[in-house]
Amino acid sequence: MRNWEKYIRKVEPYVPGEQPKDVNVVKLNTNENPYPPTPKALEAVAAFDIDRLRLYPDPEASVLIEAISNRYNINKNQIFVGVGSDDVISMCFMTFFNSDKPVLFPDISYSFYSVWADVHKVKYETVALDENFNIIPETFYKENGGIIFPNPNAPTALYMELDKVEDIIRHNQDSVVIIDEAYIDFGGKSAIDFVNKYDNVIVVQTYSKSHSMAGVRIGFAFGSPELIKALNDVKFSFNSYTMNAYSLICGVAAMEDEDYFNAVVSKIINTRETAKSKLKELGFSFPDSKANFIFAKHESVPAKVIFDKLKQRGIYVRYFNKEKIDNYLRISIGTDEQMEKLYAALKEIIKEEK
Amino acid sequence: MRNWEKYIRKVEPYVPGEQPKDVNVVKLNTNENPYPPTPKALEAVAAFDIDRLRLYPDPEASVLIEAISNRYNINKNQIFVGVGSDDVISMCFMTFFNSDKPVLFPDISYSFYSVWADVHKVKYETVALDENFNIIPETFYKENGGIIFPNPNAPTALYMELDKVEDIIRHNQDSVVIIDEAYIDFGGKSAIDFVNKYDNVIVVQTYSKSHSMAGVRIGFAFGSPELIKALNDVKFSFNSYTMNAYSLICGVAAMEDEDYFNAVVSKIINTRETAKSKLKELGFSFPDSKANFIFAKHESVPAKVIFDKLKQRGIYVRYFNKEKIDNYLRISIGTDEQMEKLYAALKEIIKEEK
Repeated sequence: MRNWEKYIRKVEPYVPGEQPKDVNVVKLNTNENPYPPTPKALEAVAAFDIDRLRLYPDPEASVLIEAISNRYNINKNQIFVGVGSDDVISMCFMTFFNSDKPVLFPDISYSFYSVWADVHKVKYETVALDENFNIIPETFYKENGGIIFPNPNAPTALYMELDKVEDIIRHNQDSVVIIDEAYIDFGGKSAIDFVNKYDNVIVVQTYSKSHSMAGVRIGFAFGSPELIKALNDVKFSFNSYTMNAYSLICGVAAMEDEDYFNAVVSKIINTRETAKSKLKELGFSFPDSKANFIFAKHESVPAKVIFDKLKQRGIYVRYFNKEKIDNYLRISIGTDEQMEKLYAALKEIIKEEK
Repeated sequence: MRNWEKYIRKVEPYVPGEQPKDVNVVKLNTNENPYPPTPKALEAVAAFDIDRLRLYPDPEASVLIEAISNRYNINKNQIFVGVGSDDVISMCFMTFFNSDKPVLFPDISYSFYSVWADVHKVKYETVALDENFNIIPETFYKENGGIIFPNPNAPTALYMELDKVEDIIRHNQDSVVIIDEAYIDFGGKSAIDFVNKYDNVIVVQTYSKSHSMAGVRIGFAFGSPELIKALNDVKFSFNSYTMNAYSLICGVAAMEDEDYFNAVVSKIINTRETAKSKLKELGFSFPDSKANFIFAKHESVPAKVIFDKLKQRGIYVRYFNKEKIDNYLRISIGTDEQMEKLYAALKEIIKEEK
């Protein structure tokens, strides 16, 4: 071993959901939106003077912050933006979680939390869900250096009512509490009002799901002016110009077109509710979903078998080879047409396996 | 002080060069390219199917890696890409600089190096330049946990010949040596061949200057397959999807249009050489520049006075209120027309101050 190799950081590389290059794949594996972004984004892109690409983008992303401020009726100094909610949450870990006490998050949850804790050298402990995958607020009532949980949770899709979220916040006034609302627009109620009521709360959302813009990489966070200032100070000390020109203009267009957003979200919710009956008929059970995916297991066919056989048929869903959830599939909600293909394939597979 | 405030990371916020919203400003303050990006980028943007924004971008940025690979005739497994060279270098600090020995860089250099060292909790020491701002290779011949320097250096614009760069590398086979070539295309020779000769060398370049694409946020690095794999492992463990869809397609278009690139770079070099005579005539002296900026002081008028008076006239240059360089201005090379405005304004200001 050469000497410099000793100083290379060792990490467990994350394996993201497959991004097949074949466009004929029915892609229900990464919780993307099956509908295109608002047509206003295309207009904004066409109207953009490409000569301006030679300039650094506005480091403060002012146009985007303003569009988000108008849409959510919240002050501009309470909004932070980053390169996807992964960037926003990683920045939160770096900014807020510098205590010696462990940060808490659910044991079945977004897999990146433990990764960011490791990257930023933050201690953590996981707290157990109940036997139906519900978050138990009381598990968070102990000494900690910070709290983060998704609502709805991933990959379970289970939503926690806001009174329980508030219970967790009220019992944790000594640390920063982050609510990761990547999937909130599909039927849950956002905790956004708590950022005005409690100055230690951060609510994170994303363009990647409900806004049909995973490709632009924008995440955003709401918080008290103190917390947002702290995030910006760290971000500016680190990499000032992260939000590129096209993402800014697409992001503004999406925020401004609330009607389009509402129509898309309604369609996905309708398809999801149909999917719940269809999957039940096929012998699946699942926690009740308020997200754009369903976390389902079959009464007789193992998840891994279904996963592989769906893939052979050009239908991609997500399978996690992890304790407690290794008999579940995470199925993103696609268009009605895509879902019909899924039901037909599942029917065949279940028949084959009988 | 509330308890959670104790755990907030304290940082020295970086103040980026001003990005005035007034488009009439003659903007010579952030080393941007005065010419637009290749027209091929506009074609690529127009041809892009915006519906694909709903999908996550390819986490491996394959199309971009391939375009860079073709252009530089280097293997794809020797290329890493990130959100601007700031992101790339920060990721290098995180990945390679985990020794207890200090990382070395010049005392007058890119101001972010010390910031990233602090953010990633890396020890560092600066090494002195000579009285003419040249890097002295011998100052790097001591125990260290890594080395980074820009070539040409910033903000001095001074280029170091490749035999001296190689001296530094040869004397430092026990740590990773990073050569930050943000400005290399304006007349210097790249150290890229050293990444095949030495497996501990990283060469970093950017789209922000010579490619006229500061707005797309792309930086890239060359290195041995081992070093590039280590960078990718850290990046994927952290935030897999950082390169957004539009940046990828613009980045490919720019890499492929080498003729346009060469024409733009030649124009800037010509303008810079004219600027050298003009500024000398006006009483300025400066290290010989091989970058797209000149680091100049005036024989009688203090830099701060010139800076303020230029700004009043709508001409922005950069002034650093820092020891050893606080009588210098960093002037980006603009179009010939912009530079004529600069010379005229400088003439007036110098006359006023006599």
